[in-house]
Amino acid sequence: MKVTIWNENVHEQREPEILTWYPGGIHETVARFIKDMPGVELVRTATLQMPDCGLPQDVLEDTDVLFWWGHMAHKDVPDELVERVYERVIRGMGLVVMHSGHLSKVFKRVLGCTGSLRWVDNTYGRIHTVMPSHPIAKGIPEHWELGIEETYGEPFGIPQPDELIFIGWFDSGEVFRSGCAWYRGNGKIFYFQPGHETNQSFNHPLVRKVLQNACQWVAPCNVVPKERSIWACPEISQTFERKTFEEILKEY
Amino acid sequence: MKVTIWNENVHEQREPEILTWYPGGIHETVARFIKDMPGVELVRTATLQMPDCGLPQDVLEDTDVLFWWGHMAHKDVPDELVERVYERVIRGMGLVVMHSGHLSKVFKRVLGCTGSLRWVDNTYGRIHTVMPSHPIAKGIPEHWELGIEETYGEPFGIPQPDELIFIGWFDSGEVFRSGCAWYRGNGKIFYFQPGHETNQSFNHPLVRKVLQNACQWVAPCNVVPKERSIWACPEISQTFERKTFEEILKEY
Amino acid sequence: MKVTIWNENVHEQREPEILTWYPGGIHETVARFIKDMPGVELVRTATLQMPDCGLPQDVLEDTDVLFWWGHMAHKDVPDELVERVYERVIRGMGLVVMHSGHLSKVFKRVLGCTGSLRWVDNTYGRIHTVMPSHPIAKGIPEHWELGIEETYGEPFGIPQPDELIFIGWFDSGEVFRSGCAWYRGNGKIFYFQPGHETNQSFNHPLVRKVLQNACQWVAPCNVVPKERSIWACPEISQTFERKTFEEILKEY
Amino acid sequence: MKVTIWNENVHEQREPEILTWYPGGIHETVARFIKDMPGVELVRTATLQMPDCGLPQDVLEDTDVLFWWGHMAHKDVPDELVERVYERVIRGMGLVVMHSGHLSKVFKRVLGCTGSLRWVDNTYGRIHTVMPSHPIAKGIPEHWELGIEETYGEPFGIPQPDELIFIGWFDSGEVFRSGCAWYRGNGKIFYFQPGHETNQSFNHPLVRKVLQNACQWVAPCNVVPKERSIWACPEISQTFERKTFEEILKEY
Repeated sequence: MKVTIWNENVHEQREPEILTWYPGGIHETVARFIKDMPGVELVRTATLQMPDCGLPQDVLEDTDVLFWWGHMAHKDVPDELVERVYERVIRGMGLVVMHSGHLSKVFKRVLGCTGSLRWVDNTYGRIHTVMPSHPIAKGIPEHWELGIEETYGEPFGIPQPDELIFIGWFDSGEVFRSGCAWYRGNGKIFYFQPGHETNQSFNHPLVRKVLQNACQWVAPCNVVPKERSIWACPEISQTFERKTFEEILKEY
Repeated sequence: MKVTIWNENVHEQREPEILTWYPGGIHETVARFIKDMPGVELVRTATLQMPDCGLPQDVLEDTDVLFWWGHMAHKDVPDELVERVYERVIRGMGLVVMHSGHLSKVFKRVLGCTGSLRWVDNTYGRIHTVMPSHPIAKGIPEHWELGIEETYGEPFGIPQPDELIFIGWFDSGEVFRSGCAWYRGNGKIFYFQPGHETNQSFNHPLVRKVLQNACQWVAPCNVVPKERSIWACPEISQTFERKTFEEILKEY
Repeated sequence: MKVTIWNENVHEQREPEILTWYPGGIHETVARFIKDMPGVELVRTATLQMPDCGLPQDVLEDTDVLFWWGHMAHKDVPDELVERVYERVIRGMGLVVMHSGHLSKVFKRVLGCTGSLRWVDNTYGRIHTVMPSHPIAKGIPEHWELGIEETYGEPFGIPQPDELIFIGWFDSGEVFRSGCAWYRGNGKIFYFQPGHETNQSFNHPLVRKVLQNACQWVAPCNVVPKERSIWACPEISQTFERKTFEEILKEY
Repeated sequence: MKVTIWNENVHEQREPEILTWYPGGIHETVARFIKDMPGVELVRTATLQMPDCGLPQDVLEDTDVLFWWGHMAHKDVPDELVERVYERVIRGMGLVVMHSGHLSKVFKRVLGCTGSLRWVDNTYGRIHTVMPSHPIAKGIPEHWELGIEETYGEPFGIPQPDELIFIGWFDSGEVFRSGCAWYRGNGKIFYFQPGHETNQSFNHPLVRKVLQNACQWVAPCNVVPKERSIWACPEISQTFERKTFEEILKEY
């Protein structure tokens, strides 16, 4: 599995203290615990400051799972890149969107949603696992302490998740659908709420475990070949050939 | 629409102070605000103490929507009645299960679930509406104060709801899928968390509004005739008659 | 309820024989059977040829349910109109997309999907109702003859429906998720497969019944006021005021 | 992963010609292609004729995934075994129900459904993959020839699947939700339509591939310890201890 971690990497440059808890930035921090996973053969990082935002088409084609973190520079991500990411997800690439990525062009494009929510800084949060049978919940307790985090509250402007795995509780009286999974075309998407740049969630053992599980879960099952347009609507024939069992055994 | 409100009606007799906030008992209280609804032609009440628990087959057949409240006497509800209610729901009768009904034989039978959860008395609760487009959320604010209520916490032993409409927040650090909707056969089911006998939720204007909306939503759309067994697996023919558009116009 | 029927109205002008089975065009045909519905106070029609495609903002604001039919001129619908329709749906307007509207900019924008599928002209179709408890299936048989129709086949490039109500069968060996419902923001969307310009489906009594049911089902439950941006992410306070039951009674 | 294949094994004894295409019976046939899978450490078979139907509690406790095939002897499966299987699924054991198992007590108990459907022998079937991103669809074509099989038709008496992966097409004008996945408690369930005793589907390469994928997918992620009752509703405390990030690092 080849993974690419994308980070806008702007906060890190304006508030260098972030580097004290996230050495090298959020992207390098996430890359370190994804590298540890079995079956991960390559982890790349990419940032807004790189040519093509670090995501030229050959990198996207060579990526099975894309992680996305952005916040203050969403608008600086080129629309053509957003379309290329969308097309790649529909063809099968997995996508994991973290925290403030809920307003990224990529998240909004892939789900057709607004991604809007209500928020406040630094209240105390807990997370409840409501779908313990889901692979992304593997090894995660039924409820656990997130600690001080940026608080997100409902209504969250998303399509009803295909699978709602985690619900967050916050001191401020908020609940939040913190861990949501969707199937889109040949791709899978997971959104996870923790990860504010001035908190420590990416160093939280269970946040790391959830993101590792998510990386495994969104990995492609069937990929549409790049030669085939995701927009194609082929004409088919009015009839089909009925096959004998012997022909079936030969064909498959 | 004909509605029947079922209540085990045991707490009311042991703790008569309940009658001071719920005159006549929980069943009479719910009946009063359901009677007010447009399109409701008849509201019956039924209790554990009545012959056949107040639900002989002719009453079930004449019921479009059944409300269910129970707590300490779940085990006293006869299994044959549970089977009759199950069969009636699958044929189209709507079912609204309230509060501690999560452990009723009827709820567990209709969904095949355990209904288990975690609980504590009397903490402060709020409710968040996460599906504002749902008919059961009509006229309900995005978030609202439930006040002091018996607290329920996850994991809630239910199938993933077809529609998760409300999520509860409680002071004790719990979240709960407070308002859940399911489709089963020709029937629809709604579960709503508020309604402990020693709190006041059935006098809460928004709790009443949610239950009124639920009564409308679970009302039958298509009913399987009682002559037809819900268990029947009819053999069909190997071919069917292709109809011309003129024949279609005649048939439908 | 105020309904607007949008039709690109191009085929009607190039192949006037369409007007023999759809007098005035597809939009006028749909308008006639929607007008018959109880609770419908106004039905407008709008076409690509009208100023602002017949959908200036004041018309959109005054529309509770929008029907959409398009085929050969999808690309001629201005992007700014598509954004206005998207914003209106998220605020609560219902949307019913018919047949070849699966490739309309509006459908693809609201769901973030490709809308791609496989197709062939004129094979024989049947429709199976797999969710008889859904309001859109009210009065619709378990399986019924669609007759000769343009055939659509899977894979259909849509998000897994929140509710899959109808599945189509076609002589050519295809199945199709013919009737799909989604919740998005405060809005509801229904897609229905029948309705090719050279077939007769809009004169099919059950197709009309399904579209009438859909019009009722997608009607708004809660509308976001136009002053409020669907993109807004308001900051909230770190605490909230706990209310007594007396204060709750006063507030709601 | 430890797998147990359960088969009622009655047809095999009355119609020994079945053994010519399924040597040793359906259970041995399925066992052979499940044994081939990576990560499968043990495959057991169990039949109705064995003591405790081959499923004493120690075998169930030692089973990660249970396959189930039954048809004419559903009623002979003891209710106490059905309850033990139910309890084990809710605690995390995966369940794969095949073909006529749709009427087994186990299937109906786990989902709370009737499992009813319409049927006819021996028409020609095809299968369409409508969820290519799902792990159970890995390596399965978009549409493929099932060949002559017992035909099942809608309405299928099941809860709306959490994930609808395959839809079947049959010559007789039927469609069927052939591949359905559900999450229940800590367990996962998959139902797959092919597998009539007098047809050859368990020798079909793609049917085998789907069942192998399903075995992987339903495997447990989190298991409830047997000491803990699935029915337990523990009381919790009214408050919880807020943890510092340092305490969180120590705890998890």
